Amino acid sequence: MLEPFAAVDVIKAKRDGRTLTDAQVDWVIDAYTRGVVADEQMSALAMAILLNGMTEAEIVRWTAAMVNSGERMDFGSLSRPTVDKHSTGGVGDKITLPLVPVVAACGAAVPQLSGRGLGHTGGTLDKLESIPGWRAQLAPAEMLATLDDVGGVICAAGDGLAPADRKLYALRDVTGTVEAIPLIASSIMSKKIAEGVSSLVLDVKTGSGAFMADPAKARLLAETMVRLGTDAGVTTRALITAMDVPLGLTVGNAIEVEESVEVLAGGGPSDVVELTILLAREMLDLAGLPDADPAKALRDGRAMDVWRRLIRAQGGDPDAALPVAAESDVVRADVAGVVTRMDALSIGVAAWRLGAGRARKEDAVSAGAGIRLHVKPGDTVEAGAPLLTLLTDEPGRFATAHDALTGAVVVSPAGSTMERLPLVIDRIT
Amino acid sequence: MLEPFAAVDVIKAKRDGRTLTDAQVDWVIDAYTRGVVADEQMSALAMAILLNGMTEAEIVRWTAAMVNSGERMDFGSLSRPTVDKHSTGGVGDKITLPLVPVVAACGAAVPQLSGRGLGHTGGTLDKLESIPGWRAQLAPAEMLATLDDVGGVICAAGDGLAPADRKLYALRDVTGTVEAIPLIASSIMSKKIAEGVSSLVLDVKTGSGAFMADPAKARLLAETMVRLGTDAGVTTRALITAMDVPLGLTVGNAIEVEESVEVLAGGGPSDVVELTILLAREMLDLAGLPDADPAKALRDGRAMDVWRRLIRAQGGDPDAALPVAAESDVVRADVAGVVTRMDALSIGVAAWRLGAGRARKEDAVSAGAGIRLHVKPGDTVEAGAPLLTLLTDEPGRFATAHDALTGAVVVSPAGSTMERLPLVIDRIT
Repeated sequence: MLEPFAAVDVIKAKRDGRTLTDAQVDWVIDAYTRGVVADEQMSALAMAILLNGMTEAEIVRWTAAMVNSGERMDFGSLSRPTVDKHSTGGVGDKITLPLVPVVAACGAAVPQLSGRGLGHTGGTLDKLESIPGWRAQLAPAEMLATLDDVGGVICAAGDGLAPADRKLYALRDVTGTVEAIPLIASSIMSKKIAEGVSSLVLDVKTGSGAFMADPAKARLLAETMVRLGTDAGVTTRALITAMDVPLGLTVGNAIEVEESVEVLAGGGPSDVVELTILLAREMLDLAGLPDADPAKALRDGRAMDVWRRLIRAQGGDPDAALPVAAESDVVRADVAGVVTRMDALSIGVAAWRLGAGRARKEDAVSAGAGIRLHVKPGDTVEAGAPLLTLLTDEPGRFATAHDALTGAVVVSPAGSTMERLPLVIDRIT
Repeated sequence: MLEPFAAVDVIKAKRDGRTLTDAQVDWVIDAYTRGVVADEQMSALAMAILLNGMTEAEIVRWTAAMVNSGERMDFGSLSRPTVDKHSTGGVGDKITLPLVPVVAACGAAVPQLSGRGLGHTGGTLDKLESIPGWRAQLAPAEMLATLDDVGGVICAAGDGLAPADRKLYALRDVTGTVEAIPLIASSIMSKKIAEGVSSLVLDVKTGSGAFMADPAKARLLAETMVRLGTDAGVTTRALITAMDVPLGLTVGNAIEVEESVEVLAGGGPSDVVELTILLAREMLDLAGLPDADPAKALRDGRAMDVWRRLIRAQGGDPDAALPVAAESDVVRADVAGVVTRMDALSIGVAAWRLGAGRARKEDAVSAGAGIRLHVKPGDTVEAGAPLLTLLTDEPGRFATAHDALTGAVVVSPAGSTMERLPLVIDRIT
């Protein structure tokens, strides 16, 4: 095959601050997928994109080229409207678990293709895999059948979806080129566009525990993704939400499933319930069901019913006991006062070190490991009161987890004020 | 081996505009040489260096780390002072060929480790290899013996010299990261420092045919290299010289040897003679021989005598006929007038396309191919007078060579003025 471009010329164009042409973008993504553009060339290009940016037109084209690198799913045969949600990831962010059943219970179809965690934020599939028997890998026909029957499915994305993104994502991870908004936005949106849903709600997190700690960058990412979705015919909205403090009272895998089930039973921590309902309302509105009442679906057991069917459809037993960590260690308050800080990043890193997360793609995660929060910012505590319980299968991990927690939880004199982000910071349509 | 750093953290530091620590620089070069830092990581780092720069201290350390990646030569056993020259490369730049013999004839020892050409500028070894029998590869002992006996040697650098640079240079070539002054300066100087000479004269070219077409960048590169050399204990000077027009009247391989021999015989084009003498004076001054007279050594046959011994010492026959191209094509003046432009880049590219240069490292070059110049800027010509003769072994190459020459040579009405760089633009000590 005669190649219409040389990789080095495309790299130099971006390096020198020029805009890539549509033909250059199409070629470089296709040639990278074919292995004609080498990893060392794509990483140099990714760094040039990170440092010199991309125009909106370039990002749109880059995203379309990644979608076109693989197959596209088609949910046209379903009787229900399809809508999906994507979170940029956070500490204790188990929202997908109660959200998919509640939206499905209200009448929309939710084909949730999820990922595994890498680093200090957990992955939805890792959490669900703590349920005995549950399988993340579904054949396309099996996925469609579950979606049609139950109204929701949470499974791993197939290899055929945006393969260019799969390859590029792994490369960016080892070359310091993850943190480029054009590349983040096109990576997320190429998968979601290839997934073939009609509409999409994005939960873009900001604060210490988020990928985009800086609120201005989170907003830029949200705006970029909303435009990319809209441009590709997927009605897209975004909420920018707080990730300065972990969501809920659990950070891990099995313990996050446990908390999600509490929410599905009509209870659970107020922030998890509130965010689940807010995102469900956005999704149902986009799905043409603005009058659906997700809060009621949680209260009256319809969401729980969908959850149980969804878990069973993928081989899981919703009544099975979840794995429990072998060892625990309680962090207590030194003094009495008010909790003014529970840093999401530190708690996420500590949970990761306890075994809840993985450092490399190949690593396994511990189902039982993680951290239970006994308090949240604003709570009053006595001296000696439990603040956190660290859970692990390997007690040798406690020391490094404690290191990560240095300064993470602060108890201040009664009456102290604290800085905290509101749960929903902004809404981008 | 437990690695003290992760490559991704070093990349991120430079990406985010931070200064790399000495330990980070030492590690990243060593780990890249060992293969622990992967090509795709080094190319991302190189792009970050290209776009974000390096401090002087970082460049010094980076250079030292590349020197330390391999062996260092030692010329301490020689009775003569050692001095070397490096040119950043130009079109028709055969200066090394007469320069090494003339400096050796004046009493210094010149261990010239040269390279092959890539792109539109030729390589010294490619030129010399057009001499029947001549070998570029010498064992270290053979090199030292020739140097001791003849006073000069021109050969390929061994694989043991700055292997990190060798690996990085090949990577930069395919990843659009060649044009970074810190990387160019450290690449050149690491090889020269590892070579172990006491002093060094740099010929930094500027103008269309030069690697650094922009004079301000050429000056920055020259200053950076002079500092790097000085810092490493090698007394270093640089001349910034013109490369807007080819040097001499030949661009190729065998025809540049032929012209060099004319200079060694006391004749030859004035610009080649002048630059040879200027560079020889700088080198001899640095070698502690300020009273030596290189012009006389050219006139009285001493330089020619060294040349013949040098060629013979490496298996070559100085009296053998040089290869001649099979085909030729003459470019003539359309109108009468004065030559106001002979663009070095265009002529270099045309000679390359005729077969004098290579597009990939693995390619062979044609000994006979190239371009003869019949005029230089400022010369008056009649309509129909020959301007250039194109030489090639493959007549199919004439068409693309003519394409490269479009607008390269301009004949203006008599009395027209022209812009031209002075031969020596600046001197950096």
